[in-house]
Amino acid sequence: MKLAVFGAGAVGRSVAELAAEYGHTVTALADSSGAVVDADGIDVESVLARKQSDGAVGDADPETALESEYDVLVEATPTTLGDAQPGFGHAREAFARDRHVVLANKGPVAERYDELRALSRDSEGSLLFEATVGGAIPVLSTIEDVGADNVTAVRGVLNGTANFVLSRMATERLSYEHVLAEAQDLGVAEADPSFDVDGTDAALKCAILANVLFDGGHTLSDADVDGIRDLPGSALELAAEDGWTIRLVGEVARDGVSVGPRLVPENGTLAVSGTRNIVQFETKYAGRLNISGRGAGGPETATAVLADVTRLERES
Amino acid sequence: MKLAVFGAGAVGRSVAELAAEYGHTVTALADSSGAVVDADGIDVESVLARKQSDGAVGDADPETALESEYDVLVEATPTTLGDAQPGFGHAREAFARDRHVVLANKGPVAERYDELRALSRDSEGSLLFEATVGGAIPVLSTIEDVGADNVTAVRGVLNGTANFVLSRMATERLSYEHVLAEAQDLGVAEADPSFDVDGTDAALKCAILANVLFDGGHTLSDADVDGIRDLPGSALELAAEDGWTIRLVGEVARDGVSVGPRLVPENGTLAVSGTRNIVQFETKYAGRLNISGRGAGGPETATAVLADVTRLERES
Repeated sequence: MKLAVFGAGAVGRSVAELAAEYGHTVTALADSSGAVVDADGIDVESVLARKQSDGAVGDADPETALESEYDVLVEATPTTLGDAQPGFGHAREAFARDRHVVLANKGPVAERYDELRALSRDSEGSLLFEATVGGAIPVLSTIEDVGADNVTAVRGVLNGTANFVLSRMATERLSYEHVLAEAQDLGVAEADPSFDVDGTDAALKCAILANVLFDGGHTLSDADVDGIRDLPGSALELAAEDGWTIRLVGEVARDGVSVGPRLVPENGTLAVSGTRNIVQFETKYAGRLNISGRGAGGPETATAVLADVTRLERES
Repeated sequence: MKLAVFGAGAVGRSVAELAAEYGHTVTALADSSGAVVDADGIDVESVLARKQSDGAVGDADPETALESEYDVLVEATPTTLGDAQPGFGHAREAFARDRHVVLANKGPVAERYDELRALSRDSEGSLLFEATVGGAIPVLSTIEDVGADNVTAVRGVLNGTANFVLSRMATERLSYEHVLAEAQDLGVAEADPSFDVDGTDAALKCAILANVLFDGGHTLSDADVDGIRDLPGSALELAAEDGWTIRLVGEVARDGVSVGPRLVPENGTLAVSGTRNIVQFETKYAGRLNISGRGAGGPETATAVLADVTRLERES
């Protein structure tokens, strides 16, 4: 398949780098400042080297990438809230041209799912977004495998940064501020970590899960969200005395979405450590299903994007 | 879809009972002694009640079920080794009639995979067998989601009976014989438990995984298999002193399949307890992916069969 990749951050770059190995061709790469387009396939290595040295992937107007020849638009620009722009606009343009859309950007599917589904219905193009929940973990495919109707609720640890902070606080008995600074040094937390530690990122993923499971209607604003910023180290120490620990857990059920610090058994399934993510599905006839793995990272998330592309190819 | 269900054990019965809820119709049900066929849908409840009281599902020759009107043959007769009959023959008959085949019976896919694939290629019917590995856990669908080419190895706890015995032996410090008798009382172990405790069942599942991952060529006879029958309780006690325990672990890699008791960290991912199963995938770009859930049970395994049927319907 020919891919037009929007966004040249960690995920967009990895998609471009791994595309050939999955048998696909990158025909356009665009970020906010420019684009490079070549219907025969761009030279990914030199384009990314240029981005590294000059800060821009190319001289062309990003608009030219939208108008170029491609089968799938890969939306990997930064997640934004509310109107979810510019990601939503890119998806709309692609659907208007009857192209497929694969999202790594959570904004459009968390904030404007119903509109996006309507655009997809009116288009020959299909919509997939495995990469938006749980990075490399095939969370949405698993829902499809099991059947959305058979999943009654989902619970999960969906933010690696918050999980890294909580697991380090618990095992090393360090303060939130100390561990956060360490996480920033390691590149696990952003300079402004609010999106992760305030629970916003996990809540967006839960809104997406709710949309998939319960046929739309959910946005971030419906979610009940608490972060870990004000969690005292003493809470973790108290929990540990009785064999418990604390994780930032997202819960998705028919009556709504909530995210917050929750007590979980110290050696239990939800107490994943470091930056790992885990998702638990409650099913009608088959009890609980757990799936865990790497919930973030450029190459990891790119594998989810490329699996979506491969699926579109198989189905087309 | 119209289903002809072969086998009226726990899985076959549950498939028949749940089919309507998944939007499918059971048009034939057969076991070794008889069959009932109705192109408009059999009365599942009364047929199963009859099986319960008379020991037979119906008076018709099982052959009539093969020749009846159906879209999908569900093969849920007991797993047999070597020639994998009668399951293999049922699948062959269905493919010859250009019908789909969904297997819960491990024999044909573990022992005669290459022949089965060839029959499927020459037929309009497709072959699916999610229920043969890991019960309700969508193990094979996950391989397809991630891409078989991206999975470099698989490791897993794939037999619930052996796992129940080992976890009880470890936590209660009871002997193998004691726990096995308990498992038999609970219905977790068969009167003749050899298939489970000697590692045969886990090895069949590993052979199936090897066939799926590495494009065929594997049977039970290639696998290196050790069971848990001769494992002394003292081995578990020694392991526990250092924070380890023992699980019956199957390993699947390009160079072969092995099953045997292995030391695993006591609180680690592989140390699932009771009858649960877990599968770990090593991937090229996305690290390790774990998936765990109920690996056996009638309704649980039936959900995997019915998910395959739904997939065939979606793709047809």
